[in-house]
Amino acid sequence: MIVVMRADAKAKEISDVIARVRANGYQPHLAESDEGTIIGLVGESEVPLREDDYQDMAGVARVERVKAAYKLASRAFHPRDSKVPLNGCLMGDRKVLVIAGPCSVESRTQIIEMACAVKEAGATALRGGAFKPRTSPYSFQGHGEKGLQWLAEAREVTGLPVVTEVMDPGLVPLVCQYADVLQIGARNMQNFTLLNAAGESQHTILLKRGMSSTIMDLLMAAEYILACGNQRVMICERGIRTFETATRFTFDLNAIPVLKSLTHLPLIADPSHGIGLREHVEAVARGAVAAGADGLIIEAHMDPEKAMSDGRQSVTVDGFIRLMENVRRVAEAVGRTA
Amino acid sequence: MIVVMRADAKAKEISDVIARVRANGYQPHLAESDEGTIIGLVGESEVPLREDDYQDMAGVARVERVKAAYKLASRAFHPRDSKVPLNGCLMGDRKVLVIAGPCSVESRTQIIEMACAVKEAGATALRGGAFKPRTSPYSFQGHGEKGLQWLAEAREVTGLPVVTEVMDPGLVPLVCQYADVLQIGARNMQNFTLLNAAGESQHTILLKRGMSSTIMDLLMAAEYILACGNQRVMICERGIRTFETATRFTFDLNAIPVLKSLTHLPLIADPSHGIGLREHVEAVARGAVAAGADGLIIEAHMDPEKAMSDGRQSVTVDGFIRLMENVRRVAEAVGRTA
Amino acid sequence: MIVVMRADAKAKEISDVIARVRANGYQPHLAESDEGTIIGLVGESEVPLREDDYQDMAGVARVERVKAAYKLASRAFHPRDSKVPLNGCLMGDRKVLVIAGPCSVESRTQIIEMACAVKEAGATALRGGAFKPRTSPYSFQGHGEKGLQWLAEAREVTGLPVVTEVMDPGLVPLVCQYADVLQIGARNMQNFTLLNAAGESQHTILLKRGMSSTIMDLLMAAEYILACGNQRVMICERGIRTFETATRFTFDLNAIPVLKSLTHLPLIADPSHGIGLREHVEAVARGAVAAGADGLIIEAHMDPEKAMSDGRQSVTVDGFIRLMENVRRVAEAVGRTA
Amino acid sequence: MIVVMRADAKAKEISDVIARVRANGYQPHLAESDEGTIIGLVGESEVPLREDDYQDMAGVARVERVKAAYKLASRAFHPRDSKVPLNGCLMGDRKVLVIAGPCSVESRTQIIEMACAVKEAGATALRGGAFKPRTSPYSFQGHGEKGLQWLAEAREVTGLPVVTEVMDPGLVPLVCQYADVLQIGARNMQNFTLLNAAGESQHTILLKRGMSSTIMDLLMAAEYILACGNQRVMICERGIRTFETATRFTFDLNAIPVLKSLTHLPLIADPSHGIGLREHVEAVARGAVAAGADGLIIEAHMDPEKAMSDGRQSVTVDGFIRLMENVRRVAEAVGRTA
Repeated sequence: MIVVMRADAKAKEISDVIARVRANGYQPHLAESDEGTIIGLVGESEVPLREDDYQDMAGVARVERVKAAYKLASRAFHPRDSKVPLNGCLMGDRKVLVIAGPCSVESRTQIIEMACAVKEAGATALRGGAFKPRTSPYSFQGHGEKGLQWLAEAREVTGLPVVTEVMDPGLVPLVCQYADVLQIGARNMQNFTLLNAAGESQHTILLKRGMSSTIMDLLMAAEYILACGNQRVMICERGIRTFETATRFTFDLNAIPVLKSLTHLPLIADPSHGIGLREHVEAVARGAVAAGADGLIIEAHMDPEKAMSDGRQSVTVDGFIRLMENVRRVAEAVGRTA
Repeated sequence: MIVVMRADAKAKEISDVIARVRANGYQPHLAESDEGTIIGLVGESEVPLREDDYQDMAGVARVERVKAAYKLASRAFHPRDSKVPLNGCLMGDRKVLVIAGPCSVESRTQIIEMACAVKEAGATALRGGAFKPRTSPYSFQGHGEKGLQWLAEAREVTGLPVVTEVMDPGLVPLVCQYADVLQIGARNMQNFTLLNAAGESQHTILLKRGMSSTIMDLLMAAEYILACGNQRVMICERGIRTFETATRFTFDLNAIPVLKSLTHLPLIADPSHGIGLREHVEAVARGAVAAGADGLIIEAHMDPEKAMSDGRQSVTVDGFIRLMENVRRVAEAVGRTA
Repeated sequence: MIVVMRADAKAKEISDVIARVRANGYQPHLAESDEGTIIGLVGESEVPLREDDYQDMAGVARVERVKAAYKLASRAFHPRDSKVPLNGCLMGDRKVLVIAGPCSVESRTQIIEMACAVKEAGATALRGGAFKPRTSPYSFQGHGEKGLQWLAEAREVTGLPVVTEVMDPGLVPLVCQYADVLQIGARNMQNFTLLNAAGESQHTILLKRGMSSTIMDLLMAAEYILACGNQRVMICERGIRTFETATRFTFDLNAIPVLKSLTHLPLIADPSHGIGLREHVEAVARGAVAAGADGLIIEAHMDPEKAMSDGRQSVTVDGFIRLMENVRRVAEAVGRTA
Repeated sequence: MIVVMRADAKAKEISDVIARVRANGYQPHLAESDEGTIIGLVGESEVPLREDDYQDMAGVARVERVKAAYKLASRAFHPRDSKVPLNGCLMGDRKVLVIAGPCSVESRTQIIEMACAVKEAGATALRGGAFKPRTSPYSFQGHGEKGLQWLAEAREVTGLPVVTEVMDPGLVPLVCQYADVLQIGARNMQNFTLLNAAGESQHTILLKRGMSSTIMDLLMAAEYILACGNQRVMICERGIRTFETATRFTFDLNAIPVLKSLTHLPLIADPSHGIGLREHVEAVARGAVAAGADGLIIEAHMDPEKAMSDGRQSVTVDGFIRLMENVRRVAEAVGRTA
């Protein structure tokens, strides 16, 4: 349920509503809208939800049930686009922001070189995996904390904020020390322990859609983080599993306009995983931006054939430069920049 | 197997190769490339395929095996983009062509009104179903031949060529009398009897991908038509079936760059079926064009809520006008027009 | 809507109801139930469906709306199991009936040999394809009418009725001349022209589920045939397309109890296509019978490695004999015979 | 790579091979086979894998490369069926073992009552969730440690071992204190941190297939646990996500024979999640056992309509009793007991 305050509601009126929400056993969450402050009621309580409890209070414009199972992630609760700070820009704002870098942090030199290269081409943030989720226990699992240190060095050199995956709730504090954005990977989208740990961290989160998760599942996973009071959540479409075998996954373009209409959260597209074929990553990136994505996350590598992971889907530096130019034109065609 | 002739090969040299292909029991198919004429060998013969039979003949540059199961549809056989004439333009050329109209032809007035409206907004051809494939035997099945006549009238009024579905191989001659382009629907993509009848007709064909067909299946279905000697084939991505229930189908954006790299055939996107939600058709259309689609097919209706079929996914006339404007900007951003 | 007559309703009372149904513009379909005769109203009419028109008529027990989109296929309309005659037995009755034979009719000798072998092992009917739907136009397409003649000879020798696919509505009369059961293949499940032709033929039909068709789609396809007044329809689960690549399709075991609860039509399982791996066909066959399938259709071949099609999923004669024995034990465990 | 020792190899010969494996930087894993002891080499080393290093050693019968990406889970490494002790029986042995109980532990009384009821009906172990993975942060998340204590009480009363889910790697030690079997749920199948923690615990593990995981992915996830030296792993087919909406998931019957041929690990079927509809759970259970499942896990509830989670798919006590009887007959038909 949401309580929409009048645009001219006084601070005292707002805090009175908040107090009553708390008294009734619910947690209040606040959002601003064109109409006025919105107070969302979340949680379970023995006191049933009743419109009557709030609608005659001073300063209240109206009270509404939120039908969607996700509350804080919904447009009903938060009509305006959420914008998440990233390197002096805002993800979810007019400029399409690009996060780029190698799949894995392979060495100190590699990650610094790549950071410089993607910055030069216009990237806003650096990605790179220090802890890698691998299907096989015998595959390279990432350099761990050493990888995080190298990422931090690359940030020092370039100024690019660092986006890196965390898989273990116990390592959230460690990763927070080094990273600017915690990535929760597709395989962990419904690892609720990790979602809660990420939420509690109050760090910026990039939450990737699970490969067999519905749009609704993704919004519910985001809700876990938001319900911890962490509003800096970016969601990411990265392809789903289907019967098609010509591509690694099926990038779900439909999810872009559907998600943008249902939620206020910034939406990033991952064409690298979405198609899994280097030569076609740019086409999918253009498509995603044309359909309304707020950002991109791109795997790029100096020498993809020799990459320790995901080489087949990593673009070269030259490929990344071209991608940035071509994506910029598409961004401008839909009233944005890049 | 293909025989690539030298750029300076003489007509006599080409016809000698063709004669030997026939003598060996294969059907020769010709295509032009930057290198020179390409002669494709298709069919089954008791004489095995041997490079040696052709490679020393006068005028021959080289002989190559085509590994793909599809031959005539492949870039190996036909490296240049095929271009299919449509209303004085070419589908597959620089301009993104848009086919638009209602799902079903509902009445004479309706189809003429819609034809005028979509022409005014910039459509190149008119779509409309006279024979409708319906899941239920009790749903409206289309007006049949009367519907075809109304389509023909709408063409007379507007000059727009008519695209309409044919479901029955026995009705191919009838539909050819009225239609400029025969559409083979998703449910019939592997109706091989119909593919052969469509191929034999030598009419222009719009072949839609089946909802559970792989990219390879689609190319093999196109091969059926091409193998009849009918080269005017346009293929169409229209969404596949997946576990996602928020949308009607999952539009497979990946298929666009993958198909454009594998085949020379013009590629059309159908965002209306691809997402199934009117308010998001434009976003998918923009994405498809940004990723490289040569054309679009859009369901539009004067009053979608009252449409006899597919109203949920039909855009209004105003929506179609906006779609055309916004698609045009995206087309220009990727070096095309619309 | 259905009109359920009282168990003691007189013939005159029943015919009066039928007459009123016709007068109101609907087609009456009759079924027997434990309660009494059921008259189903099907079709479109300008007269709206009204319970009041029938419920006070003599002999009427009650009038009910059928909510499902399929009517004649539903248990509401036809509560008892339908039973379709096959070689002196009834498909849908206590005995699990097995249809077996090669994927393709390859030669006169081959089909007669296989017919003898599967009869010996206990099969009730012979399958074999004369017209083959093939993904590639260059693959073996079947021996056509010659294949039908060989099938008929095999029937003469063994007494086994013949089940064979028809793909072309124009060939339905020809195939009816030779075959006892017309098979409509997965790729044609929504070829509505073919469904109507099969319905009109009044021949026994084996309708296979499309590889991306829902359970609901399958019932609607059956409804097309039933709506033509042809009640001898058997439906078949044969595997659906999913992301799993270790098997050819994913046999949908769930569909067996779900279909048996929704429809009265006999249900056959096709484990050969369902898994696509010879060594595991028997396990799937056992599972299907344990879950309630009324029959099986099995691809068997003298020398599967040399089969002209589907060799990978064809069992040997020895394998078929073992399958029959093991399936029989499972059938008995669930209160049936085989 | 595996080194197969001769049946008459001496202990010293075996330990010499093990020593050389270690000297070369690999971890040796041992299994018994009809041929003789098998020593599997696992891990990464700077010394390349060479057959020559081992094949001339005393007592060695032969050396073989294991092509599959999973090693310890493969039949090549471990030809005989693995058997995992459970309540004095062995999962993977002739008797089909049934684990049953409510989705969630709701109260002390409820779990004790259910434990008595399922024991009475013939269950071998008790299931019940204390930590529940829920799509929504606002749904009941389980009673946590209190729930574990109630489970332990139910074990004391009935003697049934306890199977319960663990979601948080940090809670593995706590759950191990109370539970006999740790369940890793579908959403966590690729939570590699959790897999490692479960492996290190040396507790018996029930690993459920992810809802979009391939058979290969499942085996690789099991390999994570096995690679920690924990051989008490049972795997579980519980349905995958497909386009079908008539059922909650699509139970993948094919996976049963395929997995039994690829791996030696005991295989359990979960028909409750696999179909998600109470009235059809038994049919799927019968099918799974007929196809070769070693065990079943069934959700049962005193009053399913009032269950705090998964009520729609929980059978009643009466339904469970019937299920046990009918499954027993099918088990006997395939040469097992239950």
